[in-house]
Amino acid sequence: MKPSFSCLFFLLLRLLLFCFLHCVASSTARQRDLLNKFYFNNGAERSSSSSWARSLLSISDLESKAYDNSGLKEGDKVVRLPGQPKGVHFDQYAGYVTVDRANGRALFYYFVEAAENSGSKPIVLWLNGGPGCSSLGYGAMEELGPFRVMSDGKTLYRNPYAWNEVANVLFLESPAGVGFSYSNTTSDYATSGDRRTAIDALVFLVNWFERFPEYKGRDLFITGESYAGHYVPQLAHAILHHKDRLINLKGIAIGNAVIDEETSNKGLLDYYWTHAFLADETIVAIHKFCNFSPGAQLQPPECNRAIAEANHVFTEVNVYNIYAPLCFSSGVTPTPKLPSIENFDPCTSNYVEAYLNNPKVQKALHANVTKLNYTWSGCSKVIQGWSDQPSTMLPIIHELLSNGIRVLKYSGDLDGRVPVTSTRYSLNKLKLKVKVPWRAWMLNNEVGGYTVVYDHNLTFATVRGAGHSVPSYQPARALEMIKSFLQGLHLPVILRN
Amino acid sequence: MKPSFSCLFFLLLRLLLFCFLHCVASSTARQRDLLNKFYFNNGAERSSSSSWARSLLSISDLESKAYDNSGLKEGDKVVRLPGQPKGVHFDQYAGYVTVDRANGRALFYYFVEAAENSGSKPIVLWLNGGPGCSSLGYGAMEELGPFRVMSDGKTLYRNPYAWNEVANVLFLESPAGVGFSYSNTTSDYATSGDRRTAIDALVFLVNWFERFPEYKGRDLFITGESYAGHYVPQLAHAILHHKDRLINLKGIAIGNAVIDEETSNKGLLDYYWTHAFLADETIVAIHKFCNFSPGAQLQPPECNRAIAEANHVFTEVNVYNIYAPLCFSSGVTPTPKLPSIENFDPCTSNYVEAYLNNPKVQKALHANVTKLNYTWSGCSKVIQGWSDQPSTMLPIIHELLSNGIRVLKYSGDLDGRVPVTSTRYSLNKLKLKVKVPWRAWMLNNEVGGYTVVYDHNLTFATVRGAGHSVPSYQPARALEMIKSFLQGLHLPVILRN
Repeated sequence: MKPSFSCLFFLLLRLLLFCFLHCVASSTARQRDLLNKFYFNNGAERSSSSSWARSLLSISDLESKAYDNSGLKEGDKVVRLPGQPKGVHFDQYAGYVTVDRANGRALFYYFVEAAENSGSKPIVLWLNGGPGCSSLGYGAMEELGPFRVMSDGKTLYRNPYAWNEVANVLFLESPAGVGFSYSNTTSDYATSGDRRTAIDALVFLVNWFERFPEYKGRDLFITGESYAGHYVPQLAHAILHHKDRLINLKGIAIGNAVIDEETSNKGLLDYYWTHAFLADETIVAIHKFCNFSPGAQLQPPECNRAIAEANHVFTEVNVYNIYAPLCFSSGVTPTPKLPSIENFDPCTSNYVEAYLNNPKVQKALHANVTKLNYTWSGCSKVIQGWSDQPSTMLPIIHELLSNGIRVLKYSGDLDGRVPVTSTRYSLNKLKLKVKVPWRAWMLNNEVGGYTVVYDHNLTFATVRGAGHSVPSYQPARALEMIKSFLQGLHLPVILRN
Repeated sequence: MKPSFSCLFFLLLRLLLFCFLHCVASSTARQRDLLNKFYFNNGAERSSSSSWARSLLSISDLESKAYDNSGLKEGDKVVRLPGQPKGVHFDQYAGYVTVDRANGRALFYYFVEAAENSGSKPIVLWLNGGPGCSSLGYGAMEELGPFRVMSDGKTLYRNPYAWNEVANVLFLESPAGVGFSYSNTTSDYATSGDRRTAIDALVFLVNWFERFPEYKGRDLFITGESYAGHYVPQLAHAILHHKDRLINLKGIAIGNAVIDEETSNKGLLDYYWTHAFLADETIVAIHKFCNFSPGAQLQPPECNRAIAEANHVFTEVNVYNIYAPLCFSSGVTPTPKLPSIENFDPCTSNYVEAYLNNPKVQKALHANVTKLNYTWSGCSKVIQGWSDQPSTMLPIIHELLSNGIRVLKYSGDLDGRVPVTSTRYSLNKLKLKVKVPWRAWMLNNEVGGYTVVYDHNLTFATVRGAGHSVPSYQPARALEMIKSFLQGLHLPVILRN
């Protein structure tokens, strides 16, 4: 077997699983560039989840990282975002929380209080994945935040399905090097990884609660998508093991989330075949010749050839929503186009990038106060390596369930990046009993998706017609789903006749 | 096993395969009614395709059914359709062709000449399925015709992707009892079936060419969708066996077409599972306990229970496009809504029904001249039975290929009614060699779908993002596909880099 084949196989498999999940949503050209040039993670430590968890427990100096945050809250208040529409009746805050004073690591957050009764509503922390992509740029400005950016890159419009209808929502750009978050110790960017991402996020939360003490003890839900399938359970695990900090974690929700390497790869290729993007002979070869177990090394040439065939799909369609149109422009429009919350604009990332690089916007957000020597971008251009990533999150998810943490795993069913097939295969590995059988859930007399509840309070839900970033493509369904989850209710049903 | 279970199984299996494929596109309520009340075909003869074909050959009196059509063409000319937009530069004809003088059976057609150079362009005959649905109402007014009906049910707008951009298109309402087509011998409606449908369509063509003699010898392509997967190859077969009529048949194209019972049923259930509409345990039971072979009779209760579970999908979503919105209104709007050719209006059938029941429209079309005692409807309300239907079309398709007839089998990949899975399973049964391997085909730099060419000139093509009626949901891709097919070209490619 030629060495080039085995190299290709590993490159492709890892691309299939990890590569910067959000950077490439806006054009095929960019997707192809990425596929050709970028996979930063060749040297990552591939530990099992349980050994990863043990080493995470060795955060002995957490107390020393609880800095003085008193009085900083008011300085973080966002008076008004440039281009913001009238009639905003909730408070917004944004700014930096130092997570490592010695190295000068500080994480940027954007906090949106609930539109009504914020004092009695839970906190939802939202994390985007990547690794390396921004919760401000994606989560807040393209998905579930209160505003979306118009095509002029200057004006905002209201998202009527924002999650601050039901919660106080905290967007965190994580780890340092993502978005406006930074480290004064540049070498930190070369040593990013799951472990430090979780520790820094925990330190962030501890300090954030000091800055917003009225939220201490409030119900907390950690949510996110894509590679945040690692971040979210890992942070939840870290919180559980530092109960002394009195963070009132109730549940986690992860969407189109990477949680298990073996099933992600197999599920992705099966998804392409069952959605008629692959030849029969390609999937037959994959099933016959490829070994997806995390320990597998050399693959026969028949497997490599089939994977190379499958890789064409990535270069041809928007894998984050396999039926969505592509974006063929690279900038913004001189005048704003009439936006539609129901039809997601495939060029949205362009508008967000323009907006967040506007100095007036940065000033309003208290962002970039140290004058970073790079521009804001949706996915990090400074993080160059990723030092550790467990091959599966399933043991941690099991641990969370055993500790009474509610888990929602949801899946936009048009995503080809972390498809619903992968998620179902992953969850099946948990071998949990079905508590409430599979059924449709409904919104406005339409099927919002399908759902099943497993023992220990694990809910799986699909969101029908949604891509990778579910609230971008199906905002009403996403809001309905998270609302039910926060309230501890089953997703809505109608009776069949 | 309780008798009710085996009844249920057969009812459901037949529903899955045949039930009036088009009647139910506009509301879930109507779909549910249909599922509960209607399957007209319990007594149908289930012959094999080859025995069916032999009996078809016994049309000995074809010559006696070539009636005098001279001079009738000009009377069929449609001067102007009510509500028609300005700037129409092609000719339209509509009227009746008698196919059985003794019984008074007459079929209604609508013929649209090519927008340019009609004299050198082929004829495309279009047939909708059902059995029992109208090519005028669906094919012409919702899919590939030059006009679509606005939401007021009165005004027409141009379809820029009409197939008369590339061909002279002939829509036939078939068999008698469908749309405006009728029989003066009411008992004919109780004895409809595949065989007489093909014979009457052949007689129609023979007479139509007498009425339009300038089209004699012109390249002819027979196209259609859904249950026309039976009609189209059967008519092609009948033409082949009456070469004396000098009909210049070049090819057939069938979309989301029923061609093989066994694979249709299996493919449909697999499609629902792989698209996350069914529980894992449901598909496991189906694969383990159900026998889809045409001869199978009794099924174990485990199979029946699983099929009943799968049946819920039919009551919950629009199975003709599993991600499309439903229609929640039953009529037309007082003023026309701004139409969008790109976003198919789920209530279109309402508008078409209102338009075609307008006496002025009927007069302009020379329709309903005998004053039928029922209104025009998208799918027949008078056909009460279906006497014969072979379980597979594969032998006929093989015969056509062997006789040099080009075959295009295409599939909108969002159709849950006759899904792409079923079609792929069906074609695999032909065991043809791959001549041009699976690849994407392109339009406007986007993937229009995927395609593979088999030996003997059988092309399979998917249309990405299209439901059951492909030109409704992806009109530009549908036009590109049929254009390539008519010209005998492969679907367009871009080079990969």
